[in-house]
Amino acid sequence: MAKELKELTSRAENYSQWYNDLVVKAGLAESSAVRGCMVIKPYGYAIWEKMHRALDDMFKETGHVNAYFPLFIPKSFFSREADHVEGFAKECAVVTHYRLMNNPDGEGVVVDPDAKLEEELIVRPTSETIIWNTYKNWIQSYRDLPILINQWANVVRWEMRTRLFLRTAEFLWQEGHTAHETKEQALEEADKMINVYARFAQNWMALPVIMGRKTANERFAGAEETFTIEALMQDGKALQSGTSHFLGQNFAKAFDVQFAGRDGKLDYVWATSWGVSTRLMGALIMAHSDDNGLVLPPRLAPTQVVMIPIYKGEEELRRMVGEMETVAAKLKAKGITVKIDDRDNVRSGFKFAEYELKGFPVRIVIGPRDLAAGTAEVMRRDTLEKETVPIAGIEDYVNRLLAEIQDNIYQKALKFRDSMITKVDTFEEFTRVLDEKGGFVLAPWDGTTETEIRIKELTKATIRCIPFDSMEEGGVDMLTGKPSQRRVLFARSY
Amino acid sequence: MAKELKELTSRAENYSQWYNDLVVKAGLAESSAVRGCMVIKPYGYAIWEKMHRALDDMFKETGHVNAYFPLFIPKSFFSREADHVEGFAKECAVVTHYRLMNNPDGEGVVVDPDAKLEEELIVRPTSETIIWNTYKNWIQSYRDLPILINQWANVVRWEMRTRLFLRTAEFLWQEGHTAHETKEQALEEADKMINVYARFAQNWMALPVIMGRKTANERFAGAEETFTIEALMQDGKALQSGTSHFLGQNFAKAFDVQFAGRDGKLDYVWATSWGVSTRLMGALIMAHSDDNGLVLPPRLAPTQVVMIPIYKGEEELRRMVGEMETVAAKLKAKGITVKIDDRDNVRSGFKFAEYELKGFPVRIVIGPRDLAAGTAEVMRRDTLEKETVPIAGIEDYVNRLLAEIQDNIYQKALKFRDSMITKVDTFEEFTRVLDEKGGFVLAPWDGTTETEIRIKELTKATIRCIPFDSMEEGGVDMLTGKPSQRRVLFARSY
Repeated sequence: MAKELKELTSRAENYSQWYNDLVVKAGLAESSAVRGCMVIKPYGYAIWEKMHRALDDMFKETGHVNAYFPLFIPKSFFSREADHVEGFAKECAVVTHYRLMNNPDGEGVVVDPDAKLEEELIVRPTSETIIWNTYKNWIQSYRDLPILINQWANVVRWEMRTRLFLRTAEFLWQEGHTAHETKEQALEEADKMINVYARFAQNWMALPVIMGRKTANERFAGAEETFTIEALMQDGKALQSGTSHFLGQNFAKAFDVQFAGRDGKLDYVWATSWGVSTRLMGALIMAHSDDNGLVLPPRLAPTQVVMIPIYKGEEELRRMVGEMETVAAKLKAKGITVKIDDRDNVRSGFKFAEYELKGFPVRIVIGPRDLAAGTAEVMRRDTLEKETVPIAGIEDYVNRLLAEIQDNIYQKALKFRDSMITKVDTFEEFTRVLDEKGGFVLAPWDGTTETEIRIKELTKATIRCIPFDSMEEGGVDMLTGKPSQRRVLFARSY
Repeated sequence: MAKELKELTSRAENYSQWYNDLVVKAGLAESSAVRGCMVIKPYGYAIWEKMHRALDDMFKETGHVNAYFPLFIPKSFFSREADHVEGFAKECAVVTHYRLMNNPDGEGVVVDPDAKLEEELIVRPTSETIIWNTYKNWIQSYRDLPILINQWANVVRWEMRTRLFLRTAEFLWQEGHTAHETKEQALEEADKMINVYARFAQNWMALPVIMGRKTANERFAGAEETFTIEALMQDGKALQSGTSHFLGQNFAKAFDVQFAGRDGKLDYVWATSWGVSTRLMGALIMAHSDDNGLVLPPRLAPTQVVMIPIYKGEEELRRMVGEMETVAAKLKAKGITVKIDDRDNVRSGFKFAEYELKGFPVRIVIGPRDLAAGTAEVMRRDTLEKETVPIAGIEDYVNRLLAEIQDNIYQKALKFRDSMITKVDTFEEFTRVLDEKGGFVLAPWDGTTETEIRIKELTKATIRCIPFDSMEEGGVDMLTGKPSQRRVLFARSY
């Protein structure tokens, strides 16, 4: 085996280093020369393209259309909604000038001081403000509603501590921005979209998630309600994977967007926004992968099957590749993506390690003895199990296997996640579970931001959400002893 | 007819105003509150999505993969290649700070003076510099070549005079950046991609283009050779629609990107870059549309067929719509996109005008008398011709008609373009053709930048390209009387 290729830190040794190694060595992304900004490499981008396509289809099926709004937001717009600016002001990239000039003192170029903008522009960290300023001109009456628009875009949040995919200064995302006639319709939309995200996570990413409401303290800046999907990584830390916000009339009021209702009276428009980002790449990688490399759910794998010939000499290589091309054509006819690796300047062992690292879901190896017996060796990446299979009909076998792998990855993640949800009633149990086991902790809470912040200070755990399916039950807050209505979901998180 | 909806300025009256009216009224785009930046509205974005998809497929078929590089470029990188910085320095948006703070003097927020970047960041106007700085780490030997990467992204060029789609401060585009072992391979790539663009323009946009080389004066900043496709708009002005650059070793040298060749010796890598942008939307709109609105080639129309019922009363409406749903299902089975407009709060005449304005390629109208006769009225948008067609088998009729419309739009544009290419030999003829007729003018040129600039100053016409198919012929420059090797293509342009 080609150890030199892999050299992955193991998860047990250093989970954080394992993640970073994996992202870089599997060719998914790397840090760039610009602080906090990453380069998404072709293999990583190919996975993102699959996510993009699947999500875009789901958005369109639910009645949404795409549009594009400016990258820049005038500073004055940005500060119209008080909570919003408060939430984002500290991490804004600001454009102040629009021209460079030759350096009068020497080589190179400097910013031209005469080319100062009258009003500074913020590079969008999210687009509510510029979009609601636009919607103002689009909405006069209830007949103009709903507006159901999504945007695929890059955004910038000047993060100080960054990690590839999980937290970067620039990231790619989609942001839905909808406008509605009634509060109920907006709430329904926000709920619909968090469900779309949950279905996407489960059906495409093989990632089980817990849906719920954020506490006031954890809400999006400017929202009246934030819904979230929370996933669990293998190290027992939670990862917020998508959010959907009911914005009430806050942005409509900030940008004076009123409409004439069915009764002829003017009222402010109700709003939602919702987004997922390249952060999902981080979730995908961390949730399923192992010490050999990536484990990708077949529905998101850029290439689902790799075929590797075993041979001696060029003639045998040609024979194996010929056979593989026949098999590949049959797989492609079933909609399966295939690559034949016929490189003859690297050993098979090196290839094996490389495709394990890159997480190709299925590997088919054919050598002369296989060919004589009419069989191939098929390995599944998720369990690393091998099976010898007749070449005749192998396309049906692989097709079933891919579905099985997709399901198995999900079931494994689900089983792990479920094993990592612990109910506790006392603060002592709470800290012990966090320290010794990690994962999600369901605990009573008195409902105050004060207690929530105190718990965070003491334990670094936050309330990930108030699960949609949490039930009212008696109990007292584990820290303050005050009455608690229901358990909420705590975890340490990314 | 619903005149109030259309109110398009006619092309004859004011071509420029007609274009702007059309873009806004057809719901394609509008100006935003940010100087020079546009909002691409859902209908316009849907066309761009179709272009994006078609181009992306063509890039992948020719062996390219997508990736994503940072939005920001450190100022020092940007100035590494001398011609490049010279070409772009005057139109750069510059990020200087990364935080806002509450205004100590009053309301709102101001830029935090303590959050000044050590080095200013340029919002990418194009990505050669950040990408070649990245490629440096990816390329050691000839085995790492070629790199064939494309990026879909937004870029910013601080233009002073902007027009929707044609020239905006921010625009969407794709930029290919490839790295090669030899000069020949890079030249071949640049040539291949300008041909991809020409095929896309012709087959998808129904837009005939002239391919050729740019003069030194019109080259991309940092290129050794720029290939272009030039299209002609209905007002006789040219529009550069896509460019592909052979960058020589300029960026490899600026970023010190060397590779060990097959002979073991170090050499600088050869490069190309190539791009098309949302400017193509402007070309598409201006090339084909008329005084009634958009004319869209069916392959790029977001919806190809609209069906409008004629009826009295709700029962009849339901009956017509029922029939239309049956027809729509048959059309969809052929891969045709269809919309049934069953709104009962607007008159049919209003709907007719609206879909003409929006350029739906085919309109099907069914009323009670049609239904009794088993026929429908089919109108094609390109010629506005109507025909009565049996409903049985209408899907085959429409399918053929869409192909015919696609071809007809192309043939019409081609005929117009060909009628607008004039050969001249004297400067007097040259200015007369430019002023009285417009279009492309093929004229002899002495090959000097000096003469080229002088002609531009005198006539506002530029050399659009030296056509690939131009032949060597005798002649003298029309201005200087110096010897000319071949005719070149002049025009006034967007």
